[in-house]
Amino acid sequence: MTDAPSSAHSPVALAQGLIRCPSVTPQEGGALAYLAEILTAAGFTVERPVFSEPGTPDIENLYARLGEGPCLLFAGHTDVVPPGDAAAWRHDPFAGAIEGGELFGRGAVDMKGGIACMLAAVLAFLGRRGPDFGGAIAFLITGDEEGPAVNGTVKLLDWARARGELFAHCLLGEPTNPDTLGEMIKIGRRGSLTANLTVHGVQGHVAYPHRAENPIPGLLRLAQGLLAEPLDAGTAHFDASNLEFTTMDVGNPATNVIPAEARATFNIRFNDLWTPETLAAELERRLAAAAGNTVRYSLDIRPTNSVAFLTQPDAFVEQVADAIEAETGRRPALSTTGGTSDARFIKNACPVIEFGLVGRTMHQIDERVAVADLDRLAAIVGRVLDAYFPQNAATQRQA
Amino acid sequence: MTDAPSSAHSPVALAQGLIRCPSVTPQEGGALAYLAEILTAAGFTVERPVFSEPGTPDIENLYARLGEGPCLLFAGHTDVVPPGDAAAWRHDPFAGAIEGGELFGRGAVDMKGGIACMLAAVLAFLGRRGPDFGGAIAFLITGDEEGPAVNGTVKLLDWARARGELFAHCLLGEPTNPDTLGEMIKIGRRGSLTANLTVHGVQGHVAYPHRAENPIPGLLRLAQGLLAEPLDAGTAHFDASNLEFTTMDVGNPATNVIPAEARATFNIRFNDLWTPETLAAELERRLAAAAGNTVRYSLDIRPTNSVAFLTQPDAFVEQVADAIEAETGRRPALSTTGGTSDARFIKNACPVIEFGLVGRTMHQIDERVAVADLDRLAAIVGRVLDAYFPQNAATQRQA
Ligand SMILES: [Zn+2]
Ligand SMILES: [Zn+2]
Repeated sequence: MTDAPSSAHSPVALAQGLIRCPSVTPQEGGALAYLAEILTAAGFTVERPVFSEPGTPDIENLYARLGEGPCLLFAGHTDVVPPGDAAAWRHDPFAGAIEGGELFGRGAVDMKGGIACMLAAVLAFLGRRGPDFGGAIAFLITGDEEGPAVNGTVKLLDWARARGELFAHCLLGEPTNPDTLGEMIKIGRRGSLTANLTVHGVQGHVAYPHRAENPIPGLLRLAQGLLAEPLDAGTAHFDASNLEFTTMDVGNPATNVIPAEARATFNIRFNDLWTPETLAAELERRLAAAAGNTVRYSLDIRPTNSVAFLTQPDAFVEQVADAIEAETGRRPALSTTGGTSDARFIKNACPVIEFGLVGRTMHQIDERVAVADLDRLAAIVGRVLDAYFPQNAATQRQA
Repeated sequence: MTDAPSSAHSPVALAQGLIRCPSVTPQEGGALAYLAEILTAAGFTVERPVFSEPGTPDIENLYARLGEGPCLLFAGHTDVVPPGDAAAWRHDPFAGAIEGGELFGRGAVDMKGGIACMLAAVLAFLGRRGPDFGGAIAFLITGDEEGPAVNGTVKLLDWARARGELFAHCLLGEPTNPDTLGEMIKIGRRGSLTANLTVHGVQGHVAYPHRAENPIPGLLRLAQGLLAEPLDAGTAHFDASNLEFTTMDVGNPATNVIPAEARATFNIRFNDLWTPETLAAELERRLAAAAGNTVRYSLDIRPTNSVAFLTQPDAFVEQVADAIEAETGRRPALSTTGGTSDARFIKNACPVIEFGLVGRTMHQIDERVAVADLDRLAAIVGRVLDAYFPQNAATQRQA
């Protein structure tokens, strides 16, 4: 049996330990070594695979596993975005200072704080139940989520699959609560697709428009064609898919010249009614209809691995929601809003849901978390562990 | 009486003399001095006013006048656009070389060639008729047409008005023929108005569009509102007014960010149904209707001194058209097409029409003119002079 967790393994102490490792992508910064030491001491088998890809920095990752039987996977990343102007912070972004009940530091909520809570809860659970708790627990932690995300979770999952590692469910500790701990679980994410649209014209002088072909009205027409009808009305768990033009550029400084080309970029966040392929077909259909025989254009859809996915609300989702309600008094919303996350990759290995801290200060100056939230999140994860690995089930298996 | 013109005063010799003066705006390059010497020798009173304006180079100009009575004004510019890659020219752009019956050089058609023809015709006319031909002839030549055009024709006309100089009609020698000498007289020009349109939104993340306000759909809507209906259907002597968007720019490289602002620029070439003021009111009306209460925008109309004008076809236009037909066998079209010219300023002093060489090579590498065209244009101007100052009228006045 493992010793009961010391105060050195409290959620806030672990979060401080991680924040003090300057692990700005792609730097490991000591954060994975810190986790490896604690997990090894707790009885985990720890691996530190390094992944490479031409044109991107080598990235260190961590995989740790303990126990036999159905495996509950805790996933996350120790890399953080740069602090920005460090002098603008109230406290050094890598000091882990506490003031007024809040822990300051880059990664406090995204997501060293979340990892600290999951780790503290697991250590306490092992302290309570010992290593023969009737199942398995794993940690899959990448150092490449905020960067190119090439040598991170995707390769780590491939690597684990090649070793025959199986997972029953995954809890990804990204910050999911907009304002208050317990508000929101993410049970899926929309997909994301970006495309460049170019309309080709013929350059000329504004005084002789009949000798030129202005691409701008053509671009207006195509944009209109893309925006005229909603893509869908949403589904049970998803908002309506949404198309936003992010830029539109001609770059012609001469006010007496009709330009040769007009370019636009748009991004679509799409729900589970679409795949990137069906969406591409719909875009081509709308553009062809709007262009008729008069607008010459090209559409360049960027490759995407961000597809929409949904983890059907099942017993595991209920367990997590129950644990949240027990600790916070709030029944969390089951949401699929927001940006993409590594959950889009993990969902290919097992059902995944996301729950973590309050994200309000993430990626900002003075990123910080209430110490009380760290304790509450660890307690929630503790409840999840107890529900996921019930005492009697373990007893039955051991018998 | 002035001597009959020598071959040194043939149209091609005068054009060569001017081309050999490297008068790229704002350089005088010797071109006005060259004209001054010849005009003085021919009996003209020549003035060389220099105009200044903070932030622009000082510019030399020329005004010459001879005779009493109704004054026929010849107008033009000796400055030229830069030659571009001089090595790409078949002949040095400032050498005035002749090959295959064509005179090569920057300004050959725009418009040293035109000035040479007017001057040759005037010298020949004075040779035929002497200084007491029953009227007055003036030359108003600027060195600032291709540049900022601040210290050129506008100030020269103000200067002449302040001296009490009056003009009956003006012939501006810009190249007016698209392909063949004699095709086209310009009896007016459209006005030009440029405006910047900015739509204001609220920046945000594409995954949270409800927290942002994308300015691009607003810009599409306003652009649509400006383009939906033609401004007019044209008039007796003018094409329909025309609006062209020349650029549309957001400059947002982040495909996951909804931008804060979208900007567009458009230019309108407008006919004599509009003034800049009535046009501005119409633009504001269309934009307000398209914007409704939902699009926040600002419209910045750039100051313009380019208003539409028309010289009503009268006896002078007929004289010029008759002269062209007599020399070329073509009855010229009376046109108001194309870009703006200094005629928009001269029209405030007297009725002005434009006729010159074939403009096809203007502003290009290997700008050139057929020597035969120079001779024909000089002959046309000679016929205009004879018709404008008829022998019997002069005799009557002298009597
Ligand atoms: Zn994160
Ligand atoms: Zn010109």
